[in-house]
Amino acid sequence: MADARVVFLPSGRRGQVAPGTSVLAAARALGVDLDSVCGGRGICGRCQIAPPAADMTRTPGSALSPPTTAEARYAERRGLGPDRRLGCQACVQGDVVIDVPPGSQVHRQVVRKEAAARPMEMDPATRLCLVDVAEPDMHDPSGDFERLAKALEDHWQINYLQADLEVLREIQSTLRQGQWRVTAAIHQGHRDPTPRLTALWPGFHDRLYGLAIDLGSTTIAAHLTDLADGSVCAAAGAMNPQIRFGEDLMSRVSHAMMTPGGAAQMTAVVQAALADLARDVARQADVDPRAIVEVVVVCNPVMHHLLLGLDPTELGQAPFALAICGAIEGAAREIGLRDLAPGARAYVLPCIAGHVGADAAAVALAEAPDRSDDLVLVVDVGTNAELLLGNALRVLACSSPTGPAFEGAQITAGQRAAPGAIERVRIDPATGTPRVRVIGCDLWSDDPGFPADTPVTGICGSGIIEAVAEMRMAGLVDASGLIGSAAQTGCVRCVPEGRTHAYVLHDSPRIVVTQADIRAIQLAKSALHAGARLLMDAFGVDRVDRVVLAGAFGAHVSPLHALVLGMIPDTLPERVTSAGNAAGTGARMVLCSRSARAQVEALVRRIHKIETALVPRFQEHFVAANALPHATDPFAALRGIVPLPEVRFHRDSGRRRRDPRDRAATE
Amino acid sequence: MADARVVFLPSGRRGQVAPGTSVLAAARALGVDLDSVCGGRGICGRCQIAPPAADMTRTPGSALSPPTTAEARYAERRGLGPDRRLGCQACVQGDVVIDVPPGSQVHRQVVRKEAAARPMEMDPATRLCLVDVAEPDMHDPSGDFERLAKALEDHWQINYLQADLEVLREIQSTLRQGQWRVTAAIHQGHRDPTPRLTALWPGFHDRLYGLAIDLGSTTIAAHLTDLADGSVCAAAGAMNPQIRFGEDLMSRVSHAMMTPGGAAQMTAVVQAALADLARDVARQADVDPRAIVEVVVVCNPVMHHLLLGLDPTELGQAPFALAICGAIEGAAREIGLRDLAPGARAYVLPCIAGHVGADAAAVALAEAPDRSDDLVLVVDVGTNAELLLGNALRVLACSSPTGPAFEGAQITAGQRAAPGAIERVRIDPATGTPRVRVIGCDLWSDDPGFPADTPVTGICGSGIIEAVAEMRMAGLVDASGLIGSAAQTGCVRCVPEGRTHAYVLHDSPRIVVTQADIRAIQLAKSALHAGARLLMDAFGVDRVDRVVLAGAFGAHVSPLHALVLGMIPDTLPERVTSAGNAAGTGARMVLCSRSARAQVEALVRRIHKIETALVPRFQEHFVAANALPHATDPFAALRGIVPLPEVRFHRDSGRRRRDPRDRAATE
Repeated sequence: MADARVVFLPSGRRGQVAPGTSVLAAARALGVDLDSVCGGRGICGRCQIAPPAADMTRTPGSALSPPTTAEARYAERRGLGPDRRLGCQACVQGDVVIDVPPGSQVHRQVVRKEAAARPMEMDPATRLCLVDVAEPDMHDPSGDFERLAKALEDHWQINYLQADLEVLREIQSTLRQGQWRVTAAIHQGHRDPTPRLTALWPGFHDRLYGLAIDLGSTTIAAHLTDLADGSVCAAAGAMNPQIRFGEDLMSRVSHAMMTPGGAAQMTAVVQAALADLARDVARQADVDPRAIVEVVVVCNPVMHHLLLGLDPTELGQAPFALAICGAIEGAAREIGLRDLAPGARAYVLPCIAGHVGADAAAVALAEAPDRSDDLVLVVDVGTNAELLLGNALRVLACSSPTGPAFEGAQITAGQRAAPGAIERVRIDPATGTPRVRVIGCDLWSDDPGFPADTPVTGICGSGIIEAVAEMRMAGLVDASGLIGSAAQTGCVRCVPEGRTHAYVLHDSPRIVVTQADIRAIQLAKSALHAGARLLMDAFGVDRVDRVVLAGAFGAHVSPLHALVLGMIPDTLPERVTSAGNAAGTGARMVLCSRSARAQVEALVRRIHKIETALVPRFQEHFVAANALPHATDPFAALRGIVPLPEVRFHRDSGRRRRDPRDRAATE
Repeated sequence: MADARVVFLPSGRRGQVAPGTSVLAAARALGVDLDSVCGGRGICGRCQIAPPAADMTRTPGSALSPPTTAEARYAERRGLGPDRRLGCQACVQGDVVIDVPPGSQVHRQVVRKEAAARPMEMDPATRLCLVDVAEPDMHDPSGDFERLAKALEDHWQINYLQADLEVLREIQSTLRQGQWRVTAAIHQGHRDPTPRLTALWPGFHDRLYGLAIDLGSTTIAAHLTDLADGSVCAAAGAMNPQIRFGEDLMSRVSHAMMTPGGAAQMTAVVQAALADLARDVARQADVDPRAIVEVVVVCNPVMHHLLLGLDPTELGQAPFALAICGAIEGAAREIGLRDLAPGARAYVLPCIAGHVGADAAAVALAEAPDRSDDLVLVVDVGTNAELLLGNALRVLACSSPTGPAFEGAQITAGQRAAPGAIERVRIDPATGTPRVRVIGCDLWSDDPGFPADTPVTGICGSGIIEAVAEMRMAGLVDASGLIGSAAQTGCVRCVPEGRTHAYVLHDSPRIVVTQADIRAIQLAKSALHAGARLLMDAFGVDRVDRVVLAGAFGAHVSPLHALVLGMIPDTLPERVTSAGNAAGTGARMVLCSRSARAQVEALVRRIHKIETALVPRFQEHFVAANALPHATDPFAALRGIVPLPEVRFHRDSGRRRRDPRDRAATE
């Protein structure tokens, strides 16, 4: 009988196979990406294919063999669409075109829900393989591990298998429990492709999970991810318990320097917190933690060193030398995660520099400035801001010490983003009357249904940014950042406070924005803007094509208000977008894809780092950026759509009134 | 100026180099094995060469440049022979023949002191490299590890360096302590050649050590070995603390089966004992334990599993399946050795089968039956005997359950080999009068100067073997193993004891050899002999060319007496040699040489295992071997040199006197 011609879609791969060849075998022979865990036993259902429409009738003489009992069993147990066959059961009988649906491809793109996001590539480092292992034989003595390795070699072409002792310790009982049929989790890294046995289940097992961890100085977020399709099964967050050793990074570095064993203390508590979070998300999703085979961590350099047990002292002083900047792959138990699969692997993204960490690397991967045709500025604001500027030609990075003002800290009525916090502000330019929106209520304070008893407790980061920007747009604050008096502004809400003025944003309880608050915001935004300017100088440009705001900050700050403050370089508001949790997205991309790991490592090597402390112009840019929006840049694009009143106030104090033209240079 | 022709001896490698090229650089360029730790700084002295005799005058115009100040400094500090130059300092100026002495070769043979032993090949997995590392630079941020890796790449062609977290944790402080000059220990395995940083010292460091551990059921021996030349710097032994959970292997397996956590308990105590021993030998040799970079362990399969934390239960029952039989390489800290170099590596030799362990593999490596032209039987006797039979064509192995009689256990006056134990026995065939030698005294008991107060406390293993063999040769015991009466033997020392007789070996204190003792020795030696016969059957031979006795047993048992007992197949006594501590030798070979690792792994794969329990003829061989020396084999070679009186005794009991011809078949 003549060979049958087979064409696989969407790959287009084609070839001839002997009639009677299973579709799975044909796919493997032709190098078609068709998934399988059970290796052709009709158990896993990963190899589902869509037969050609003409074949749907499944009449005798069709190009595929009729459904088997294994398929009937699978359909009964787990369901099988009417237009689906199991590739391991359906055999080629004649010329046929076979469609491999996305769900049956190991390497595939998964479109993320987030709006602006690129599709996620599935290329996980770990896969599952069901095997029947030879029983021990006294005539031909060999170890359980060697017989397992032999089965994986024979049926899955997995050669030179390695395993950690932790995994070896479970092989004997699992093989016997599964009566010599087991499912093996095989890890193959992107750099060292040696296959590594990381977990073993008795019988058939088909779920694999990964854990993406975003380890921040203040909070830790964990996303439990299904490694079959990259979907998030559960998410959990926790405070970073290192906070009790120091609120910010530098006080933690000090703790490590000053307290013998201080660094080890912080390493222990953060590793324990990670372990707790892993248990939490697994419980939430009702997943056995031992099915978690991969962990990815993104974090800033100090968190990086403290997590890995490396001394962070050098990060507290010039030249801010990292102990290691490259990506780290190792056993998850080495970072304290002991309840996962016995051989679970952990991957920590590379750091870009002593101030620009693995979190920035993850943002870079997710936002891919290196693949952008236009020039994009990516801004990730936390206590430090990390900035990336680039396009397909080159990418620059720096960090800038913004301080915590953007998070509501150091602000008179500041508070964390929690119910009761003012998060949005609008001020009527004619009257100076404010209206606000408070976390926990979807209505504006002047909406008819706004509940009078809505608790209002303070202002969060996005609230103070909008408040100051709205005050500037309403003419209550001048370009230098001074709040005018009631007489100067015609607004009774501008009230004296000491030798300066404050703006009454809310009456009951009374919440004010003081002159000191505005100064704090000016310092923070000057640092951010100056960092961006340094990168633009290094790139040789004075405009960027678009701005991406990453992180929680980006998700909550309105582009218009950020521009009015001059936090970012002048552009049109529609050219400023939010990337959501880009660091978390980058972590999940790396979790699901070996090629993403290779990509982020190559990207980090390509990124050119600018150390702000070393560039003399930083100070100059910082001073010029102090004005709202800027002392020297007219912000023409912004002014084209928003009027910024040209008011000039002066202090009522006894101090010499300075020429406003000097202010930018000296203040 | 024309290139100079250079010939290196003893390799004979030759080539042309530009005048002014250092001898070290020329050697590297021509692929000559010339050692160096300092990389050409004149510090380490490893690259010493012998210039040609004509060049000894070091006159101007000679083929090598004149001595440098670095050489003068080195000679003053550490001494430099008059016929030696430092290869990194001496530059080629003209055609020259250069001799590389053995001590300057990384890969070299070291002749061991032990008589029969083969030379030891030096090919250590770890080497030292001195490097100057770039200091951190804010303009070009990179990690300390990356800069170290770069230096190793630039100066030593070491690419893709890896390091465990434990090693990374020390990099920062060591680099700064050494002011950016450090010596790195680089490990490259024989299977995975990825270079791995395992230790780092500030400045110049030139000593590396390895630890060879022979982990027995009863005792543990550790040899601290200098990895420069394979010499033993210190040795220490300890009791295996697992003894408190069971005297022999099977009772330890029982403990693991019956006691929850029992296996983990035994793993913990033996790992702790190894750590103590490591500290002991280091202290003895005044070596920093952190200079120990390699560990090699040999042990039987049960010890192997318990050391690695693998459940030994399966080894207690058919089919005696090992969890893993291949060699294991990993971090030394994984087997509890935490005080050594932070990245110290451990290598555990492969097991041959469930009853034939890594210790037998080490014996096989050291005695190399696979390289023997004649057919050699290698016997390693402990509580179990492991036997290897082979030649260059093939090698067979089995184990045989001899029990502990050969170690003096289960013997009426038996004791461990310790001062006071009778270790040698001679009986005058004419009179039946014994003389003995006792551990702790070099004289025989009938020598003139033998101190009357020499303590005599019992009989050790070699003593009971000689005693029974001498009794057989003196006609006090017949071929069936029966002790004759005084009347039958004409020897008053044969005294009645119950319904049998005993022989008075020593008068004060009275030490006797009983009929039960002889039965115990017969059982043990039958098992040993039957094992050897099975291998000979499988090989298709009924004679072996030579026998090697390994282990402490081999060192103390006289070949003649072993033959008289029929412990081993008939041959001439001069064809029976002792291999000393062959397992320990194998361990040290593997410690010092990667090629020995590859060799032992290949050898173990080649060895064909015979499971004694599965061969029906074992029982038959066992019964025939019960006689002294043997019921069916005439032991013609032995009888050609030693008369074995053809006495026949019968029991004085009321039991039917059996026809002696039946005895061998039924007893």
